[in-house]
Amino acid sequence: MNKTEIPDNSLSEQDEVFSLAVDGMGGDGAPEVVVAGLAAAAERHRGIKVLLLGDEAQLRPLLAKYPKAASICTIWHTDQSIPMDMKPTSALRMRQSSMRLAMDAVASGRARGVVSAGNSGAMLALAKIVVKTLPGISRPAMAAISPTIKGDVVMLDLGANVACDWRNLVEFAVMGEAFAKAVLGLPAPSIGLLNIGSEELKGDEKLRVAAEALRESPLASQFHGFVEGHDITAGTTDVVVTDGFTGNVALKTGEGVLKMATTLLRRVFKRGIVSKIGYLLVRPGLERMKEWLDPRRYNGAVFVGLNGVVVKSHGGTDAEGFTAAVDVAMDMVTHGFNDSIRDRLSHMSALLSPQQNAEEREPAVPVS
Amino acid sequence: MNKTEIPDNSLSEQDEVFSLAVDGMGGDGAPEVVVAGLAAAAERHRGIKVLLLGDEAQLRPLLAKYPKAASICTIWHTDQSIPMDMKPTSALRMRQSSMRLAMDAVASGRARGVVSAGNSGAMLALAKIVVKTLPGISRPAMAAISPTIKGDVVMLDLGANVACDWRNLVEFAVMGEAFAKAVLGLPAPSIGLLNIGSEELKGDEKLRVAAEALRESPLASQFHGFVEGHDITAGTTDVVVTDGFTGNVALKTGEGVLKMATTLLRRVFKRGIVSKIGYLLVRPGLERMKEWLDPRRYNGAVFVGLNGVVVKSHGGTDAEGFTAAVDVAMDMVTHGFNDSIRDRLSHMSALLSPQQNAEEREPAVPVS
Repeated sequence: MNKTEIPDNSLSEQDEVFSLAVDGMGGDGAPEVVVAGLAAAAERHRGIKVLLLGDEAQLRPLLAKYPKAASICTIWHTDQSIPMDMKPTSALRMRQSSMRLAMDAVASGRARGVVSAGNSGAMLALAKIVVKTLPGISRPAMAAISPTIKGDVVMLDLGANVACDWRNLVEFAVMGEAFAKAVLGLPAPSIGLLNIGSEELKGDEKLRVAAEALRESPLASQFHGFVEGHDITAGTTDVVVTDGFTGNVALKTGEGVLKMATTLLRRVFKRGIVSKIGYLLVRPGLERMKEWLDPRRYNGAVFVGLNGVVVKSHGGTDAEGFTAAVDVAMDMVTHGFNDSIRDRLSHMSALLSPQQNAEEREPAVPVS
Repeated sequence: MNKTEIPDNSLSEQDEVFSLAVDGMGGDGAPEVVVAGLAAAAERHRGIKVLLLGDEAQLRPLLAKYPKAASICTIWHTDQSIPMDMKPTSALRMRQSSMRLAMDAVASGRARGVVSAGNSGAMLALAKIVVKTLPGISRPAMAAISPTIKGDVVMLDLGANVACDWRNLVEFAVMGEAFAKAVLGLPAPSIGLLNIGSEELKGDEKLRVAAEALRESPLASQFHGFVEGHDITAGTTDVVVTDGFTGNVALKTGEGVLKMATTLLRRVFKRGIVSKIGYLLVRPGLERMKEWLDPRRYNGAVFVGLNGVVVKSHGGTDAEGFTAAVDVAMDMVTHGFNDSIRDRLSHMSALLSPQQNAEEREPAVPVS
């Protein structure tokens, strides 16, 4: 780990372990949104200790403005930060960026998790290289929480892996289940595998093999089987597992439909004086609905399958959204998210071994 | 073509060509929903002639009840029909089903298109075998119209092809463009290829090769490039092209989100007397919004790439929805949908030839 400068107040206790390392410079509203978000987090999480990476000249006045944030933060100065549009390959070469130093802190055990609202591509690349993949996991995935009619659903992968094989899907199920336990607090989350129907000719071979493997695994009792697109918001299962391409399209399609509905609804309420009065009468209910669907409540996509907690806040988030991302990270740190995955994997290693795959699991007939 | 029985009034003019062959027995509400839907279609489409396949004992009293339908229909009796839950393989063995006879009528040139609200899997299988694929098209696809903030969008494939290569995607673009011309009446529809971002590391090779092929094709000026999930409802392009797995998930996810929004909204309006009054005030606007998003307006998924017009109505549709499916079929028949595809393909055959593919288009680097 390469430290550029250690301010007087930081890292004086050499053995101090921080709850989180936070990238102070990542995101459209950084650094103020980050510091304001941490101020709210200070009230929600007792005993939280944050290592705040970034430009001290910008961060210190903000900590003065938000004393609650100051009470939990230790600044670690660096003047490098990764621009939002920088390619991952270039970002990897920047050794002193605030995002990299935050990852370094997790890798060295100095912090238990990292939160950044910065460049997603750079974050995934750095997480893989610096924090590294959990033993027994072939590829990290991106998970997030979404609203349903009943409650919340954990969905993964949301774009980290464009192409997946059946083993990746089974690993996603393991990671998604641990995530739903840690963040949604469910004792035995149910798991669905996203498909396009249950008919004989539908779906592809990797889905059928993954389903078969899950039915024989310690997760069998929680595995619901195949689910379809409409099951995501119906809350049919607590976890929905899919490849990164499909998951990303589903997530963004859902966001688009919600935006369309909101836009059309706004037009309805602006349609003349009578509608405007109607709007005023239903507004309290609408506010509650808006809160339920508020993307900020769901801010915090998580890279799961890494040797540490890595949470990505949306780049365009406000302080409230950033606090939500910190909440997710703290839930994962506090509830032993990775321990839960490790424990589960130790009971599934035979199932996921390549030998087993070669002999028993490869489809006999190639998929058309 | 195997005729079971020809009632007195049918096929008396041996050269008569019907606009559509309609499966009178397909769908949850058949046969009444079908006949009622045809009654409304009779008013909308001047000169429409329908060959109605099904059980005469059930159909004739309904035609007496709906004289407008009677004025356009010729019954062709058969007492076989395909149950909604029958497997495609079994359905193919049923030679005298109302759905099969409707397809036969198209294959023999007796009708220009077919509409059925029956079993989807059976319908796709029968369409491929009886109506057959258009020369130059490797695989038929399933297309449909969806609402956006701006207008309508044509999306395909929605589930006919789980796995696709770049050439399939280019063919879908050709078919989707012709569909948008015929059904939406657009002179030069824009085309987007569904992906998960435009960044270097995102998407897969078949998408990049398909995009490159479209940029060099006669459709180049209409090709917008990659679009993402949220672009579907934003109306970024008139046509969205994707593989059948992703398209099916996106469609059903969108339907699910819309259903969630509607359910939450209903709760808002039922929240006490004040909200109920508010609801009454905004109801006219809400009705318009509901109409805009009405699934019946979008009823009629089309199997494109076949030697005839094949339209699938939703199995659970009402009469109004069935009329919408007939509208789609009539638009395609009237506006020379297949001629438009044939014309376009004749200018693209070199581009789509396997030789070209082998030499120039195969990705140099395998996709990870």
